[in-house]
Amino acid sequence: MSNSPFNPPVRTLMGPGPSDVHPRILEAMSRPTIGHLDPKFIEMMDDIKTRLQYAFQTKNAMTMPISAPGSAGMESCFVNLVEPGDKVIVCQNGVFGGRMKENVIRCGATPVMVEDEWGRAVDPDKLRDALKANPDARVVAFVHAETSTGAQSDAETLCRIAREHDCLTIVDAVTSLGGTPVKVDDWGIDAIYSGTQKCLSCAPGLSPVSFSQRALDFVSSRNHPVQSWFLDLNLVMGYWGEGAKRAYHHTAPVNALYGLHEALVMLQEEGLENAWARHRLHHNALKAGLEAMGLSFVVPEDERLPQLNAVTIPEGVDDATVRGRLLNDFNLEIGAGLGALASKVWRIGLMGNACNRRNVLFCLAALESVLSDLKAPIERGVAIDAAMGQYTD
Amino acid sequence: MSNSPFNPPVRTLMGPGPSDVHPRILEAMSRPTIGHLDPKFIEMMDDIKTRLQYAFQTKNAMTMPISAPGSAGMESCFVNLVEPGDKVIVCQNGVFGGRMKENVIRCGATPVMVEDEWGRAVDPDKLRDALKANPDARVVAFVHAETSTGAQSDAETLCRIAREHDCLTIVDAVTSLGGTPVKVDDWGIDAIYSGTQKCLSCAPGLSPVSFSQRALDFVSSRNHPVQSWFLDLNLVMGYWGEGAKRAYHHTAPVNALYGLHEALVMLQEEGLENAWARHRLHHNALKAGLEAMGLSFVVPEDERLPQLNAVTIPEGVDDATVRGRLLNDFNLEIGAGLGALASKVWRIGLMGNACNRRNVLFCLAALESVLSDLKAPIERGVAIDAAMGQYTD
Repeated sequence: MSNSPFNPPVRTLMGPGPSDVHPRILEAMSRPTIGHLDPKFIEMMDDIKTRLQYAFQTKNAMTMPISAPGSAGMESCFVNLVEPGDKVIVCQNGVFGGRMKENVIRCGATPVMVEDEWGRAVDPDKLRDALKANPDARVVAFVHAETSTGAQSDAETLCRIAREHDCLTIVDAVTSLGGTPVKVDDWGIDAIYSGTQKCLSCAPGLSPVSFSQRALDFVSSRNHPVQSWFLDLNLVMGYWGEGAKRAYHHTAPVNALYGLHEALVMLQEEGLENAWARHRLHHNALKAGLEAMGLSFVVPEDERLPQLNAVTIPEGVDDATVRGRLLNDFNLEIGAGLGALASKVWRIGLMGNACNRRNVLFCLAALESVLSDLKAPIERGVAIDAAMGQYTD
Repeated sequence: MSNSPFNPPVRTLMGPGPSDVHPRILEAMSRPTIGHLDPKFIEMMDDIKTRLQYAFQTKNAMTMPISAPGSAGMESCFVNLVEPGDKVIVCQNGVFGGRMKENVIRCGATPVMVEDEWGRAVDPDKLRDALKANPDARVVAFVHAETSTGAQSDAETLCRIAREHDCLTIVDAVTSLGGTPVKVDDWGIDAIYSGTQKCLSCAPGLSPVSFSQRALDFVSSRNHPVQSWFLDLNLVMGYWGEGAKRAYHHTAPVNALYGLHEALVMLQEEGLENAWARHRLHHNALKAGLEAMGLSFVVPEDERLPQLNAVTIPEGVDDATVRGRLLNDFNLEIGAGLGALASKVWRIGLMGNACNRRNVLFCLAALESVLSDLKAPIERGVAIDAAMGQYTD
């Protein structure tokens, strides 16, 4: 085995995440490691909590990053809020709703599935019907921003319906946080999880979460212990809780948290509303370009996430060939389809730091070049013009 | 809230971990992020697996880092190898054996505790007796290197006894890997977990694990699904498994893995045996100095870990005052006692990159200065002389 270091290629990351990490965040992660119980580190943890409250638009005291990727953040919500024997309504409109179902089953609970077409938002009426048919349901779970399709659901309405039936809510905001409005308090969300590697422009590995007081009251009065020791909020709260006296739980990923801190500083510098507007602007430009190229979106316009653009692969064009050329010839990563959409769609991300004019134009130019070369019926230049039209309107 | 970046102080980390991270590793973590399904990234994953096999001294195919800290690595071993209703023998001689017990209970299984004094190695005879008294036990779990006390147990003997009774073994090697011999294949360990932030000199956040074929056979034929989706080896294997075709499971912590890769390159450059000898050398120097200062070790000499030195706090000396002065005046972190040993001992780490002559002499000089200032009966200079004697012998 050679002893050579790993020098990664410099890619442009326009898949479903990770997205391009800002150089300031990369640099922050390389600062000297300090102890996870160091008073200076604990100050930084408090600062991260406050900044995450801003990102989630919440006053929830229990707002912090789980020391593991988004799928562990998902699991932290389920293992804490679901008890064996519970009934949980899971709205599924893509891959990640299916993962929620898996989580419910592994908690020893019963999932009641509310199915919507992949590529569509969750239908509130179906949730209403399911709650009427299942008055014993305790929790409602849904994905705000389906990373597998780019569909955005109306989290505010879904949470209101759940609350009318006295259910706690678990919301997947992995792809939405920082890219499109997420308003935990206004919408009355009880448990929410996200990821650092999407619209926060950070490296993957952490999962910001937030829990309402209602959720915490449930956790502290459960009948069964939380099945995960690592994710048991009763213990995690002692470490991430108030004040300087922290109970050791696990060793926090110190340098990854430096990165998240810097990402949150940058979010505050830009301002949440400005970040949302930026994602909308560049989405409009990319959309205009892709449509001018003849590509059609999977998701109807009013249910579409600006930061994740799923488009149908043209007839006769081979998915892997195109993505391979983009990666090898252009160092450009776009995403493949997942699950039922594998080989049928591309997922083009415009997330966080990767959401900028250079990337929009570069992606359109590269895609135009590859598709033309593969003899797809592309009229040259129209995509770039259409995109530029959105910037100059 | 201010928008200032977090500039950590530059500490010398001689607690129970994290230890000083080498500048090469800090730099590696700041390299450009690439996609977690990028072919170049998958090559690096394969390389990490091979290098971890070397670190663990194993041919186990399922050797990889869990994408979360050591406590999640521990949980990955228990949730996969333990089923509801199982009986698990847990040898406890410190804090982390207690955490193993918690894991067993949360898996719906019954722990049978084999208790040893804190600060002593696990007694193989007690394990033998427990196995005779519990012929239905399926798993034996113990801590190879108790981070709470610095005691090292005879993993080879304990595993042999467990195998004679047809039990699978789960071994905590968080503090031992890279600092003292860990021989997974020779010792017949079935499941082992470690951390990156100890003797591998890496930032905290990942947990290297290894599973024997016997363990994997069990996992794939379980009666109940693994209760954790995130840690289910049946799924993790699809992502970290053989070949270029990886099934998406979770988004790997890309930059943290760059750091681990570099740490493993450095381990290979030095050579495992040399790393073990280095830890032994500097331990001998530190020990000579601490004893010359009148401090006594918690653990008997032949059961002592070189990389974690627990010493009794002298009568009349206040724990927090000393650690506070070391941190504030010297930027030196040493560890407090945990659990039953809180306020009674200090834990001085000599792990990985932090295990060097400069740190030994600096720590002794700083401790001598603070203790003298607090009127402890310290003869000046003897500690330094005693330590230097070990280097010049």
